[in-house]
Amino acid sequence: MSQSKYAECIKACIECAHACEHCADSCLSESDVTKMAECIRTDRDCSQMCWTAAAYMSRGSQFIPEICRICAEICEACAAECEKHNMSHCQACAKACRKCAEECHKMTGVHV
Amino acid sequence: MSQSKYAECIKACIECAHACEHCADSCLSESDVTKMAECIRTDRDCSQMCWTAAAYMSRGSQFIPEICRICAEICEACAAECEKHNMSHCQACAKACRKCAEECHKMTGVHV
Amino acid sequence: MSQSKYAECIKACIECAHACEHCADSCLSESDVTKMAECIRTDRDCSQMCWTAAAYMSRGSQFIPEICRICAEICEACAAECEKHNMSHCQACAKACRKCAEECHKMTGVHV
Amino acid sequence: MSQSKYAECIKACIECAHACEHCADSCLSESDVTKMAECIRTDRDCSQMCWTAAAYMSRGSQFIPEICRICAEICEACAAECEKHNMSHCQACAKACRKCAEECHKMTGVHV
Repeated sequence: MSQSKYAECIKACIECAHACEHCADSCLSESDVTKMAECIRTDRDCSQMCWTAAAYMSRGSQFIPEICRICAEICEACAAECEKHNMSHCQACAKACRKCAEECHKMTGVHV
Repeated sequence: MSQSKYAECIKACIECAHACEHCADSCLSESDVTKMAECIRTDRDCSQMCWTAAAYMSRGSQFIPEICRICAEICEACAAECEKHNMSHCQACAKACRKCAEECHKMTGVHV
Repeated sequence: MSQSKYAECIKACIECAHACEHCADSCLSESDVTKMAECIRTDRDCSQMCWTAAAYMSRGSQFIPEICRICAEICEACAAECEKHNMSHCQACAKACRKCAEECHKMTGVHV
Repeated sequence: MSQSKYAECIKACIECAHACEHCADSCLSESDVTKMAECIRTDRDCSQMCWTAAAYMSRGSQFIPEICRICAEICEACAAECEKHNMSHCQACAKACRKCAEECHKMTGVHV
């Protein structure tokens, strides 16, 4: 993909969006979905913002610092929720969220 | 909003997207979420396609007939799922889905 | 649509998203598109964030204040750009952006 | 990312979405944007459908065959438009579109 200064962050956003979509779907297949409700909600919010951030970065938008700031915030909230659950999809999602938050933080001070 | 030939369909898509987002969130607050899993899944798929179709119509895309065809199909599947459940959010969502499917069908033969 | 505390803001976001999609497409049909490049860019960024904010509000997300803060910021930038151009699609878009920014600002302190 | 049967197609969709976002932005920086109007339009439609298809596949949606069918169609139209232009961003985008169309076609008969 792109060799731009956003390449690593785009990659982390896409990995995170993918992990969140997969985690939400896997949560819906658990034997007790009721206790996964909050995880499904944060997965939904996080995946949408990560896909969105990837799009803004792909076109070099002037709003990348602001988008990455909110994306990092939502990723951290989603990671905190996923970390409460032992299932491998939640643990993998938490890890992708932490990585994405880290990469997004680096973009918040980027000069575009 | 727009006075275009798409105005009614855009409106129905937005009402449906909104109803699906709300229904999915309400399903996640039910006492037994497990039995709502399939409804949450179709709500997710349906809301995303309805927001998407509204965007394509808002900009007068050349792909409106194709987008509206798949949107109608997903709306019908979501309506069929929602109709299985008595909760008012599911019943309201089913109604919005049926209306949206009807309006989308009208667009599939539109000359753009 | 919804009778929720978000109803007015959702409506303003959707009107703005629609206006931005339409404005970008209309700019692409102007006789000199080159001078509309920045307007097309901000329209694109603004429509995407407005659709996104409408989705977060429709499901009552915990991140509504943050989403509405960035949405207001992008709307104001898009309004400022559109106001430079005399075409009716740009003037109408600027107006929708200003209204949306105003409604989004009201949501940034909302207790969810 | 995922080791699923969708992995290659998700990857192609994301590469294509990224290329289309970048191509549209680059077209807006050309000296004569007027002649790029149609390319910017198809880039916009194609990027949105590719991001959307990547999301549906990431969560293993039941509608993957239908989504991939329309995604392939839009990719082919976008490739045909981009191929008319000599700029490297258009040529790279056309290539990403053709690859994505090919991968999406493989998914249209997938048993989910």
